[in-house]
Amino acid sequence: MDLETYLKKTADEVNSLLQDCYGEPKTALSRAANHLLFAGGKRLRPALFRMAADAVNPGSSARIMLAGLSLEVTHNFTLIHDDIMDKDEYRRGKKTVHTLWGEPVAILAGDVLYARAFQHICQADASEDAKVRAVSLLARTCEEICEGQQQDMSFEERDDVTRGEYLDMVTKKTGVLYGTAAAIGSLLGGGTDTQVDAFYNYGCKIGAAFQIQDDLIDLLEPSDKSGKDQASDIREGKQTLIAITARELGIDLRPWCRSLDREGIASLITMLNEKDVINTVQRESEALISSAITGISDLPETPEKRLLADLAWYFIKRDY
Amino acid sequence: MDLETYLKKTADEVNSLLQDCYGEPKTALSRAANHLLFAGGKRLRPALFRMAADAVNPGSSARIMLAGLSLEVTHNFTLIHDDIMDKDEYRRGKKTVHTLWGEPVAILAGDVLYARAFQHICQADASEDAKVRAVSLLARTCEEICEGQQQDMSFEERDDVTRGEYLDMVTKKTGVLYGTAAAIGSLLGGGTDTQVDAFYNYGCKIGAAFQIQDDLIDLLEPSDKSGKDQASDIREGKQTLIAITARELGIDLRPWCRSLDREGIASLITMLNEKDVINTVQRESEALISSAITGISDLPETPEKRLLADLAWYFIKRDY
Repeated sequence: MDLETYLKKTADEVNSLLQDCYGEPKTALSRAANHLLFAGGKRLRPALFRMAADAVNPGSSARIMLAGLSLEVTHNFTLIHDDIMDKDEYRRGKKTVHTLWGEPVAILAGDVLYARAFQHICQADASEDAKVRAVSLLARTCEEICEGQQQDMSFEERDDVTRGEYLDMVTKKTGVLYGTAAAIGSLLGGGTDTQVDAFYNYGCKIGAAFQIQDDLIDLLEPSDKSGKDQASDIREGKQTLIAITARELGIDLRPWCRSLDREGIASLITMLNEKDVINTVQRESEALISSAITGISDLPETPEKRLLADLAWYFIKRDY
Repeated sequence: MDLETYLKKTADEVNSLLQDCYGEPKTALSRAANHLLFAGGKRLRPALFRMAADAVNPGSSARIMLAGLSLEVTHNFTLIHDDIMDKDEYRRGKKTVHTLWGEPVAILAGDVLYARAFQHICQADASEDAKVRAVSLLARTCEEICEGQQQDMSFEERDDVTRGEYLDMVTKKTGVLYGTAAAIGSLLGGGTDTQVDAFYNYGCKIGAAFQIQDDLIDLLEPSDKSGKDQASDIREGKQTLIAITARELGIDLRPWCRSLDREGIASLITMLNEKDVINTVQRESEALISSAITGISDLPETPEKRLLADLAWYFIKRDY
């Protein structure tokens, strides 16, 4: 099965499980908690969870897929709370929870999903020991995601963020949940400690690379293709890896911040290409992907091992 | 040991454990997450957790007290988020987290404590099976607390809340966490399923009675004694059990809402006493306490069993 088919199939199954679990909300709060969860999404974390389980123990994912929901639900809880903090009005093409129900209900809706994330791990048909370790890992990860979000917010008031600080932030904000998805999948699937650690590192790296790719997409993709405002990061003076790399090379992006029309963006891209900034950032994300794949090279040869390599490259090949 | 000494001793130990775990925060977010946790509090939930463990298995609490922190941390996470929703400026005599650090950091600070609550259960020296059941129970409880808070907020826009709805709300908002404290204590301490269920019900009942007592204190205690604005619930038209009971007896409290000066409050109390409203509410909370104690009467005779009865009455005897 190719990656696209695998992702589609898993997304369908995740949607069906979510429907079984939460399809008939009984309270106003449950409806608010469901809103974003049922608004789509690629379900990449449960897909990674499943690949990791089957890579260490073929067929094992079938009995633990409820725990795979845990990662999707955690992701959605963080999005609901982040949208409040960032005052975002739209997400996945729909109005955000706080826009529709107000901030108090949105805080509670996120908190409800947070609880469900831990509940889903307990529902897996796996050893009790593995489930306790999975709960502990998810808890540590949730704390790190909060740290990552806090770092990201604090960067808005700075113009001297280092490469190391940036990579630490994206690893926490995005990487660790992918790391945990892969680690918990392999753990509940019956993997060895070495395999679980390797999967954790794999996920952290592809997640960080995903975030770097987001920075590149923001700069390089025209608005009509990405659906987002092109070069908004530069305009807002955001400390992306592009901005940090430029600064390291002595390039001041601040004069570019204002009046970045289509022509201005094209000139900026040309300049950043000439100065090797874009290439340097691309090499950084590619190095993360290569390293992630190398880290799981000891896995037995299974279809999932190949899918895991494809998934890693997919994380930085997507252009939307 | 009498209850007061027991509570003091447990609070000291909880404070010491919290100091060991979180005494040296490394990040700005950790400091915000610690703020309320280190601002005092009676630590009633870990105390109940400990009593329940030792009541089913004398001495068992010593090896599981880290899990007792879980209940205190959960309580603090809900307070931080509730304070944002209610826009409260002070809590435990200190400025609230969102007042000091802003709402985004306060949302994250609550989320950090939420994660730690689950982490602490994993740290207990108990069977893996019991820990998974404890995680599952805590997760269900957190979702119910959110439902309770949502109900409480929705009641503000209504004047027809029924006795049943009120009791359901206070059970969820306050009861279930006490229920879970007692249940998880007995569960990790090695209690039987019957004991765990009995403890859960005990905690739910004393927690609900605690909240009813809060309504009575608001009306009956002079401001200089309680530190709160006397009769503020009546003034705000809040759907307390007093207001609901009065309405059931055909008494309209709305004319009393305005101009409730000291004299007006005294007249109101006299009227509510004559109409048996205050007595009815007191009997309701006393019935909950009696029923809670009866529910754990099958426990072996230990010092903790006596403390559990004392604690139950203490919940409605306190006048502050």
